[in-house]
Amino acid sequence: MSTGQNDTAHAAGRVWAHVGQAFADPGYDVVVVGAGRMGAACAHFLRQLAPALRLLLLDEGGLPSEDGATILAPGVWSDTDAAPEDRAEARWVREQLRTAFGDVGLEPRPLLTLHAQEEAGTQPTAPLLARFPALPDLIDPGALPWAALDEQALTYRPGAVALSCGQQAVRHGADLMLNARATLVSGGIQVERLTVTNTHQVVTHETHLLRPAQVVVALGAAGPYAAEHDLGVHTAHARAYRQAPRLNVPSSAHTPVLRAAGLTLRPQNGGFTLVPHIHHRDPHGYVPQGGHLTGVPTGLRRETLEDLVALMDAVPVLATEALELGRSLSDVPGAWLALPGGSARGRPLHQHLGGGAWLLLGGPQADVLGLSTAYDLAATLAGVADRPWH
Amino acid sequence: MSTGQNDTAHAAGRVWAHVGQAFADPGYDVVVVGAGRMGAACAHFLRQLAPALRLLLLDEGGLPSEDGATILAPGVWSDTDAAPEDRAEARWVREQLRTAFGDVGLEPRPLLTLHAQEEAGTQPTAPLLARFPALPDLIDPGALPWAALDEQALTYRPGAVALSCGQQAVRHGADLMLNARATLVSGGIQVERLTVTNTHQVVTHETHLLRPAQVVVALGAAGPYAAEHDLGVHTAHARAYRQAPRLNVPSSAHTPVLRAAGLTLRPQNGGFTLVPHIHHRDPHGYVPQGGHLTGVPTGLRRETLEDLVALMDAVPVLATEALELGRSLSDVPGAWLALPGGSARGRPLHQHLGGGAWLLLGGPQADVLGLSTAYDLAATLAGVADRPWH
Repeated sequence: MSTGQNDTAHAAGRVWAHVGQAFADPGYDVVVVGAGRMGAACAHFLRQLAPALRLLLLDEGGLPSEDGATILAPGVWSDTDAAPEDRAEARWVREQLRTAFGDVGLEPRPLLTLHAQEEAGTQPTAPLLARFPALPDLIDPGALPWAALDEQALTYRPGAVALSCGQQAVRHGADLMLNARATLVSGGIQVERLTVTNTHQVVTHETHLLRPAQVVVALGAAGPYAAEHDLGVHTAHARAYRQAPRLNVPSSAHTPVLRAAGLTLRPQNGGFTLVPHIHHRDPHGYVPQGGHLTGVPTGLRRETLEDLVALMDAVPVLATEALELGRSLSDVPGAWLALPGGSARGRPLHQHLGGGAWLLLGGPQADVLGLSTAYDLAATLAGVADRPWH
Repeated sequence: MSTGQNDTAHAAGRVWAHVGQAFADPGYDVVVVGAGRMGAACAHFLRQLAPALRLLLLDEGGLPSEDGATILAPGVWSDTDAAPEDRAEARWVREQLRTAFGDVGLEPRPLLTLHAQEEAGTQPTAPLLARFPALPDLIDPGALPWAALDEQALTYRPGAVALSCGQQAVRHGADLMLNARATLVSGGIQVERLTVTNTHQVVTHETHLLRPAQVVVALGAAGPYAAEHDLGVHTAHARAYRQAPRLNVPSSAHTPVLRAAGLTLRPQNGGFTLVPHIHHRDPHGYVPQGGHLTGVPTGLRRETLEDLVALMDAVPVLATEALELGRSLSDVPGAWLALPGGSARGRPLHQHLGGGAWLLLGGPQADVLGLSTAYDLAATLAGVADRPWH
């Protein structure tokens, strides 16, 4: 079951990419709303575990969902990011990443976590840095003299995993509808098929009411809002807006991932992507905006700027033009991230909302425990008791 | 020194309340910008400790400052709110509150802190509640079966303390200018005297450049912004918007203060004022707005609503119409609160900004340690080494 292959002979599912393709509801058993990494993985595992269920995966955009956190996710797997009780599960995710999705940009890449003080599992930074000739001179070992090394870490592209999951689900019989907005309504899901007019307005071309027995709400940071707004289910989940600025310092396939004060420097596309620390949720109604640095407007939110300024002594390159601060918010990629349980350290989870609706949330630890959480929900819906990591 | 009396014979200071009163700079040694409780207390103690210094206290509004956190501060003194190393200082503040400011609404009022689990210093809730016949039936002792009691707690009106401080400062020779906006500029302070036109616009009537040797920036949550914007000094301080909704349940002078899950229920004006828990700073650019409760718009921000919903089992009255939720933000009083050091648990502090400018911040613990921190800055400026709480 863990190979992504399925022996049951099913014809491939249908794909509706645009409104020119006529749609009639065949009577779905399960609809997964949202084709980011969590929804796509849930659909994939549902085809493995419950091939008899008629399944539809849909997204307001494409596969993978473009506007959510999946595309910008760091794609750093390290079991030091999982709680001790979650490590077996995290290792199952690692094995899936290695074997089940084809080319997802997987690269073994040690994770170096730097500390100002000696802690359990740390060793002196300077000799450790010397072991990585592919690591440019980013860190001042005097400011961060202690470091922990995870040699089992790896990096990958979460968007590629979501794409592979969606494609495998379709290959094994799931239907896929893109450019379709779903709203939970009493007794089902209202699906609006969207199209773009000559004047570039997104409009609803047609509406369908689906009545599946089960709905998986995998809308990322928008999921809890849908639960509350559409179903009246109040949850404790929250969200935060995370930006991923670019640091133009050379990197290669052998460059380790660095982490200091919660900031991750992830080698990517020949440079680095910075993954800022999430301290806490953003308040309801917060509109992201660029902050000023000594009077100059930037595209980075103020809180992230402050964190980078605080790290400039230890990571001097952050004070140079290698860091792409931008001039306005649109210059720096960013996305809303779900915070399961309202916590910046909340692990991925699913939650029954009542009436056959389930909320599926990834969040900050989705790189490490997202696939297994999607599997867990698929197995729950399929009535399968075993979990392969146990 | 701790009585608020000053034997030095000084004529009372001058007061400029409106632009019709001509102003000429007499050459101030110290200007305190902001007549909230921190600035007014600093001016008061400066008159005690350094009567030779020519001193001006000014505010964009009145005395006490109307728009800041002072007027809405809970006014709950409990030394359980101070860190152990700050308790002697907190007790000096208590003695000041009792003796130095006349009628500030001081009422001895036990503080009952309720817990779901047994903790150090707690006792069973039910018999404890029975000791307070003036306490209405607010708490479900089954949900919060353990409670800690601080019998030394008291309540007071922080706005009255600020008013008394400002008045005493003037009586002992400080000048006071109201309706005057101050901006830190190179080499001094630009003061704009404000007036209101026939069409209710606030306009600048005249501008003065003052060049005091020392400036105290006591602008509350706006202080760190002024430090950065006007002086280019980057600080780690932050702010949060706190609302104080009304709970219409009868209270008297003998009703204790209640606290559960960080929410303080403060008996006030025959009912209760709720003082919500501050979890963390608000992000830069956040604009407070009312949240929805099961679809109905309210005047309370969403995060506070969520905290109240979570407490409804333990404090059932929160689920009734006794709680004034309002319909829009303007229905519920609220103010920006400084978070010293960026922390919701940051204690009041002062910080030298360079060039004779000092930042003075109150924040969440200003009820307990604000007066002493203002004293500490006044003593620093006066060159006085002793602190009366040592």
